[in-house]
Amino acid sequence: MEFSANDIATLLNGEVEGNGNVKVSNISKIDQPIPGTLTFLSNPTYTKYIYTTTASIVIVNKDFVPENKLSCTLIRVEDAYVALAKLLDFYTKTKPSKMGIEQPSFVSKSAILGEQIYLGAFAYIGDNVLIGNNVKIYPHVYIGDNVKIGNDTILYSGVKIYAGCSIGSSCIFHAGSVIGADGFGFAPNPDGTYTKIEQIGNVIIEDNVEIGANTTVDSATMGSTIIRNGVKLDNLIQIGHNCEIGENTVMAAQVGIAGSTIIDKNCVFGGQSAVSGHITIGEGTKVGPKSGIMSSVKPNSVLLGAPALDFKLAMKTFSIIRNLPELRNDVIELQKKVKAIEDDK
Amino acid sequence: MEFSANDIATLLNGEVEGNGNVKVSNISKIDQPIPGTLTFLSNPTYTKYIYTTTASIVIVNKDFVPENKLSCTLIRVEDAYVALAKLLDFYTKTKPSKMGIEQPSFVSKSAILGEQIYLGAFAYIGDNVLIGNNVKIYPHVYIGDNVKIGNDTILYSGVKIYAGCSIGSSCIFHAGSVIGADGFGFAPNPDGTYTKIEQIGNVIIEDNVEIGANTTVDSATMGSTIIRNGVKLDNLIQIGHNCEIGENTVMAAQVGIAGSTIIDKNCVFGGQSAVSGHITIGEGTKVGPKSGIMSSVKPNSVLLGAPALDFKLAMKTFSIIRNLPELRNDVIELQKKVKAIEDDK
Amino acid sequence: MEFSANDIATLLNGEVEGNGNVKVSNISKIDQPIPGTLTFLSNPTYTKYIYTTTASIVIVNKDFVPENKLSCTLIRVEDAYVALAKLLDFYTKTKPSKMGIEQPSFVSKSAILGEQIYLGAFAYIGDNVLIGNNVKIYPHVYIGDNVKIGNDTILYSGVKIYAGCSIGSSCIFHAGSVIGADGFGFAPNPDGTYTKIEQIGNVIIEDNVEIGANTTVDSATMGSTIIRNGVKLDNLIQIGHNCEIGENTVMAAQVGIAGSTIIDKNCVFGGQSAVSGHITIGEGTKVGPKSGIMSSVKPNSVLLGAPALDFKLAMKTFSIIRNLPELRNDVIELQKKVKAIEDDK
Repeated sequence: MEFSANDIATLLNGEVEGNGNVKVSNISKIDQPIPGTLTFLSNPTYTKYIYTTTASIVIVNKDFVPENKLSCTLIRVEDAYVALAKLLDFYTKTKPSKMGIEQPSFVSKSAILGEQIYLGAFAYIGDNVLIGNNVKIYPHVYIGDNVKIGNDTILYSGVKIYAGCSIGSSCIFHAGSVIGADGFGFAPNPDGTYTKIEQIGNVIIEDNVEIGANTTVDSATMGSTIIRNGVKLDNLIQIGHNCEIGENTVMAAQVGIAGSTIIDKNCVFGGQSAVSGHITIGEGTKVGPKSGIMSSVKPNSVLLGAPALDFKLAMKTFSIIRNLPELRNDVIELQKKVKAIEDDK
Repeated sequence: MEFSANDIATLLNGEVEGNGNVKVSNISKIDQPIPGTLTFLSNPTYTKYIYTTTASIVIVNKDFVPENKLSCTLIRVEDAYVALAKLLDFYTKTKPSKMGIEQPSFVSKSAILGEQIYLGAFAYIGDNVLIGNNVKIYPHVYIGDNVKIGNDTILYSGVKIYAGCSIGSSCIFHAGSVIGADGFGFAPNPDGTYTKIEQIGNVIIEDNVEIGANTTVDSATMGSTIIRNGVKLDNLIQIGHNCEIGENTVMAAQVGIAGSTIIDKNCVFGGQSAVSGHITIGEGTKVGPKSGIMSSVKPNSVLLGAPALDFKLAMKTFSIIRNLPELRNDVIELQKKVKAIEDDK
Repeated sequence: MEFSANDIATLLNGEVEGNGNVKVSNISKIDQPIPGTLTFLSNPTYTKYIYTTTASIVIVNKDFVPENKLSCTLIRVEDAYVALAKLLDFYTKTKPSKMGIEQPSFVSKSAILGEQIYLGAFAYIGDNVLIGNNVKIYPHVYIGDNVKIGNDTILYSGVKIYAGCSIGSSCIFHAGSVIGADGFGFAPNPDGTYTKIEQIGNVIIEDNVEIGANTTVDSATMGSTIIRNGVKLDNLIQIGHNCEIGENTVMAAQVGIAGSTIIDKNCVFGGQSAVSGHITIGEGTKVGPKSGIMSSVKPNSVLLGAPALDFKLAMKTFSIIRNLPELRNDVIELQKKVKAIEDDK
């Protein structure tokens, strides 16, 4: 589908500067422009690219003042990044969407499927499963017995949901994510072996949650591991049994949260960071990449390092560590001088 | 199924205190009680919850002395945690278990399946595969040619076992785990490219092993990567080619063990810890979370940090690092004082 | 198949010493010899094993001088390790290889399959997919709409390729790897929730790339995430959206690269290392295990630590950190001495 600069300006509530009739059918990045597409300028460090761009239309902030001649059509908007998000969403919705039931697929007789769903070939739906309306279940998805899935949720290829878990509406699960595997619980025996503690709980995932590729969320021993509304988890993350992740908390890739830890809402975790088990992380806490948190943390903390320190202290210690050889030399120098003074007496 | 306090006390060899006829059909956590269920008190920090619990039955240690009035029935046992493990096991066994062969599934004509197995839809069994009795193979499991699997082993949905691997009895593989992918071996060429070293070995997994969701255990270049009896691996762990993991060694999530490393029995690894290749870790070694071990380690070591130090030394260095700005200021102060003394002479 | 020492020497352009008619049908490691096989000696620390080996043939470097009697046949070659790689490759090629189309599999009517391919049962090929010749697609592989795959590429069981991605020739994808899941992009809203930035880009993987088990490579927001010729990624690695990984760059397991980072060619990353988003890593950079890189790095850097320092500086700081308690004691001692000197005045 093609859209003119005038069409797009109307959609974004923006103003056209230049040829309003020029048409585009795709979107590209300003530093990797594709001729005949639309692009955008939001981050000022990319401004230089606008003067040579081969894209036909560039979305810019209202207050953008060009310093050279432009060959493209501009659309001026309140916030170019927000406008981009809106356009990408619009673009995605113009594309045809998967629908219908492919064969062979496996649906238990006791399962209830909603309307307007997509069920890919080789998808498996267990006993007593309830699937909402407009759900998309890609090939090779496994949905165990007694699972419930809300409306408008998307499960990409190979997602595995263990029996008894509950999934909300408008969630997105990326390929290979595993929800509800057994929590890691073993009782040690005197001979060094371990007895498995059977895990009879489940996972509850609320609405508007996104779970990254190959991320794992374990079932509770008893009760539920809970992922609250609006949580966004990137790829290859581990959430242990009986954890609770608060509303709108966001985690970058490869984070690990040990069992029974409670994380409050609106927290942000950098990549490869980790949290010990059985502790609580206060609302609004920000955790730097690769950090390791070993004890409970009060709201709005900003932490970095392993073990994690207050962010500013951590930055200070890093800069001292970088200069530790000088510090040690200073101490050796002092020892010599003090010795000399003592000998001198 | 419902059980009375008297029934449960008999099962656990415990003593009822209160109404022995009260019945329960489920188990809950003491801090998240569900009315009409059984719960347990083992960790003393949770004692406060027992006085207000809405659970009907609480399992407690023999020597528990209540400080307030209780409204629940108690069952006194030798060890409440061990009793819980026993009950969870009993509870799990009362639930119906998967059995039979679902269609469509793929079984090579040369494969031999044991008795009483479950084979889920879309499971794949390659040529010359041998499956023991009472094995459960969930949907989307892939079992490559010439694989052997012992009795009573469970493979959850989407487990992938490469050709030629050997799996013991009473093992549990969680969804998405991959056993036997090629070890990471490449020979560098003068032009910067790499030539793949073909990996012709396999993985041998002994009995009573549990492998977490999306964990990967690579094949040996030649010979076998070996996971010994009773090893428990959590989710998203990497075990490199030609490693050997000793009996009853336990690893938390996201641990990485590089190739050709030998880990002796009864070791414990914290989450996100890692071990370099071609080294040996002595029996009974304990490794803290996020630690990195770069050289061989003698038995019963306790290690922490990256690079890992003796645990006590690591804790000491962490506490000094936290105070490095003060230490640096102390040195600067000393430099001034010594300068003053020298000038004074 | 059996081969004589003479046959193998001809293949490797080597010289036989001992019985050239002895035959072997398999390869074993020198420290885990299997009678009747061929083994090799390349690393001098393993030399002791050659005098007691039960293997029939040992490949050695041309200049190997035995210090004791040998009972095996030797084949002397220019470089024993290169010869081994050649032999393993030869051995692998003598084994029968998968071919043909198993049922049930799912192939869209609009897909075009090359010649001589293997398509395992339960594999899924979407609309308008183009598959080259001699491609092997194992069971449970998912190939989304409009994907292109070059000749001679192998996709092991459970690989997931999202719609629109492009895969080169002679690549190997290990089980459970996920190519093209949505990049992790969200715009924060004033109420704490996040709006998803739709990801309309794709992943381009060039030729001769190997991707490890359960590794994830995310799609670009717009444009492409690019993995260049000859890149080798181990298991459980995360590559963020809009990254570019340069030719022949190699990463060990569990590495994480955040979004929009450009890594130049011939770099090497140790296990569990990580790189922040939106930076560039110069050609030929070497990064130690568990390192964390937070800013751009010039070519041929050698880095270690989190945050990463120059390798030599990092090793120096580690050794001082290990001795921090002594350094602190030295400072305390100095403080006492200086106090005494001052008091003495």
